[in-house]
Amino acid sequence: MTAIEHVERYRMFELSLTGTSEGNPYTDVALQASFTSEATGETVVVNGFYRGRGRYSVRFLPTVEGGWTYATHSDDPTLSDKSGRIVVDPAGEGNHGRVLRASEVARGALREAYGAQLPYCFSYEDGTPYQPYGTTCYAWTSQPVEVQDRTVATLAKSPFNKIRMCVFPKHYDFNNADPELFAYEGSMGEGFDHTRFNEPFFENLDRRIAQLDELGIEADIILLHPYDKPEWGFSMMPTEADEFYLSYMARRYAAYKNVWWSLANEYDLMPQKSLEDWRRYARVVMANDPFNHLRSVHNCVKVYDYNEAWCTHCSTQRVDVTRTTECIADWRREFGKPVVCDEPGYEGNIYWGWGNLTGEELIRRFWEGVMRRGYVTHGETFIDQGEQVWWAHGGELHGDAPARIAFMRDVFADLPLDSTPLDTDMAHDDAWPVATPVSGETMLAPGMEKAVQYWDVPVLRSGDDYQLVYFGWYRPAYREFPLPKGNRYVVDVIDTWGMTIDTLPGTYEDSVRVDLGRQYMAVRIRKA
Amino acid sequence: MTAIEHVERYRMFELSLTGTSEGNPYTDVALQASFTSEATGETVVVNGFYRGRGRYSVRFLPTVEGGWTYATHSDDPTLSDKSGRIVVDPAGEGNHGRVLRASEVARGALREAYGAQLPYCFSYEDGTPYQPYGTTCYAWTSQPVEVQDRTVATLAKSPFNKIRMCVFPKHYDFNNADPELFAYEGSMGEGFDHTRFNEPFFENLDRRIAQLDELGIEADIILLHPYDKPEWGFSMMPTEADEFYLSYMARRYAAYKNVWWSLANEYDLMPQKSLEDWRRYARVVMANDPFNHLRSVHNCVKVYDYNEAWCTHCSTQRVDVTRTTECIADWRREFGKPVVCDEPGYEGNIYWGWGNLTGEELIRRFWEGVMRRGYVTHGETFIDQGEQVWWAHGGELHGDAPARIAFMRDVFADLPLDSTPLDTDMAHDDAWPVATPVSGETMLAPGMEKAVQYWDVPVLRSGDDYQLVYFGWYRPAYREFPLPKGNRYVVDVIDTWGMTIDTLPGTYEDSVRVDLGRQYMAVRIRKA
Repeated sequence: MTAIEHVERYRMFELSLTGTSEGNPYTDVALQASFTSEATGETVVVNGFYRGRGRYSVRFLPTVEGGWTYATHSDDPTLSDKSGRIVVDPAGEGNHGRVLRASEVARGALREAYGAQLPYCFSYEDGTPYQPYGTTCYAWTSQPVEVQDRTVATLAKSPFNKIRMCVFPKHYDFNNADPELFAYEGSMGEGFDHTRFNEPFFENLDRRIAQLDELGIEADIILLHPYDKPEWGFSMMPTEADEFYLSYMARRYAAYKNVWWSLANEYDLMPQKSLEDWRRYARVVMANDPFNHLRSVHNCVKVYDYNEAWCTHCSTQRVDVTRTTECIADWRREFGKPVVCDEPGYEGNIYWGWGNLTGEELIRRFWEGVMRRGYVTHGETFIDQGEQVWWAHGGELHGDAPARIAFMRDVFADLPLDSTPLDTDMAHDDAWPVATPVSGETMLAPGMEKAVQYWDVPVLRSGDDYQLVYFGWYRPAYREFPLPKGNRYVVDVIDTWGMTIDTLPGTYEDSVRVDLGRQYMAVRIRKA
Repeated sequence: MTAIEHVERYRMFELSLTGTSEGNPYTDVALQASFTSEATGETVVVNGFYRGRGRYSVRFLPTVEGGWTYATHSDDPTLSDKSGRIVVDPAGEGNHGRVLRASEVARGALREAYGAQLPYCFSYEDGTPYQPYGTTCYAWTSQPVEVQDRTVATLAKSPFNKIRMCVFPKHYDFNNADPELFAYEGSMGEGFDHTRFNEPFFENLDRRIAQLDELGIEADIILLHPYDKPEWGFSMMPTEADEFYLSYMARRYAAYKNVWWSLANEYDLMPQKSLEDWRRYARVVMANDPFNHLRSVHNCVKVYDYNEAWCTHCSTQRVDVTRTTECIADWRREFGKPVVCDEPGYEGNIYWGWGNLTGEELIRRFWEGVMRRGYVTHGETFIDQGEQVWWAHGGELHGDAPARIAFMRDVFADLPLDSTPLDTDMAHDDAWPVATPVSGETMLAPGMEKAVQYWDVPVLRSGDDYQLVYFGWYRPAYREFPLPKGNRYVVDVIDTWGMTIDTLPGTYEDSVRVDLGRQYMAVRIRKA
């Protein structure tokens, strides 16, 4: 077979083949394709997968423009030695490719622009900055199709650009229905065959992940989780079955540019898996994902050791009931990677304390986290707003938080890439002076004055150009902000709950006094 | 001289003498009196003090009823060998004596009643339980007399039974006036004589501490603090001057039953004093306080090592900006003594984050602390409510917190003495069962189910008689409470902010579902 096909850069090219359906092709047939760039000469080897009834696919994600030739290799002669050529055209409007770590993407001037914040940031592979504002719908693809469609419609109107979602169904409070489709052949009555996948299930998953991509939403795919029941048993499969499943997931989904891998939700509630299991599972995913998507794992009570090399970033759940996204400062220090607090608690009124926050408290946690240059993920758990609970089923959103998250995205959209959290553990040798008097400062160790200036609130600074201060639950009547000498500044008073930005008239030098007087306020100071 | 005088038990007996005014009697004249109980034979030796113009006093706090004889000893013959007899009558209504640690007071059945909570509790010396609900007016006795009188009038209407107050004036934001009276002879212009005290200053302090006692308010006297200015210099006196002052304070005030000693406010902002200085200063106070009042010291950023034997209790300031009175659980474990969080943050709108909390947030911190069997102290810092700011000057209260603290005192008034915080670090082997399903419990280590039941909220329990659960900022639509088998229970729904207690109709067994749906709720369950 020969073919010349055009595909957009960073969009999946799918090679569909027909071969044997004898025996169990899922396990028996090996299929690969090698893709070689005419521009660079680089070759990418991609593992294919079976999809039932003699159908095979190889999915390729082209990252280099121009011509690519490919050839297949298989132990099934009818699948082997198929070759062809594709032409990769420039990426279209809004297509920025995969989200990776900025440290993998940024070069030259862009790399410089991140400064010391480079290790903590994400970026699209074309260099466009990416800040995750995720949400959570664990089992949305296991709901009736009509509910899935409503979820997509809700997401289309939402501020979210990432979603945490499981592959397997979820058995949990307020969340006990059986799905219409399962990932495997078989049934709850007769059991499931862990060597044969159920194509209709995966075709639905293909479609939903593609819909998320169209909406600019990263699919943070949770591969395993503990919230299971005996009739399902997907949390209790033998290691070989886990690895076979992980390999299939990577082969089938790695060519979607918007995929992230989360090995598990609350890995520490799965005592049947060892830490070495998780490391091996990561290797299985990596071996079958030639496109190196982001990889992490999520805790319940014990934060994972994200220093392990396979982890591209941290995907934490807050462990202290009170001190939640503030811990992002500690996790950044401990792991030196981007930190996403994927469970800061949810807005809602569910039975448990992880899911009955007010919108005000969830938005406060968002700001506390992002002010520390981490990222925070939304969830919603109202149990009295209809059949679906967003965090599990999707459906509709009912809370006050999403509108404030949209507002927040706008505020941070122009954050300088190198904006640095002022760490109150230390003094800061930068252009920003200290207001006098700072009570007690004379009693402090030399150099501590600058830490004392903002000991109580998180601060972000970029050189002498930019300062953002967030007051959270505090409500000073006013605050005085000393300004770097020799410049004039524009001052914005931001009501993070009221969603207003009031720019003070004129420009300021030396210092500015800003009236505040209510909670959840922020002050942004930019060089005029 | 002979005299028979009647004095009430736990009330000061003051022996006034006249002697030399030559030289400097403050430093030159030694005066003691020995008091011997006819009932028990015990002898208490009390150091006297000079008060100017040839006047001397010895102040005695009688703790045993019946006759006491006394005799003086001095190197001034005109003061020596004065003897007499007093008769100590039973304590009057509402006079319970000193506040001490329950472990020093409780014997027999009362001791049993405290159970494992004994080390963490206070008690009046007559055995009446005492829970501190303090407030803070650092410099109230350094204000104009008219302001001091208004402060006393406000305290008379307040729920507070303890006050943190400095001896020396305070120099700080919103707080820069010079006092009318200083503790020493001399002046800001000519300097102060650290060997000669200013009697009018101390007569005012005598009167104010007596007024507090009449109101049932413990005077938590802060002996030293850093908020000073050069023209005063009371934070910078040489060690000998500090010790002379501390000795004088103890001799003059130890016989007031409502006195507590706090060596310093924010000792760690006084680098000119070493840790050994504080230990020696404690010994000086103890040597001159035969009545063994409570003793502690208060931190700014570094919590003191309250394991030191001289510390009777912990007097902490929250060190984490977010996790405040929740830390009381840790401090109890670390120090094994009563824990008072004397600075959890204040209600108000002052410039700094320690003093611009809403009433809701301060009351939440009160509940989080008391639910962990610690104690929390109030302060108020509105800068736009007239000339006085309560935390520094006294005057009037303007906030929403005091009324809620009064309500809270009533709720905790009947708390069983042995009520124990459910420590979510561990399982609890008690009569209280676990609701099923507790999601995820089956994944947990054996025995952890009971911890999981209330992982999110603080709980107090006494046997199977009493359970109190506080929801803080959480707002579940409802919560289900499993009940110990074989009993029936009365259930109160407490709105800690709205100050209402709704008792559910009837009694309950096995379990009870309680509708909540808003923040700051508590549920009290008592055996019918």
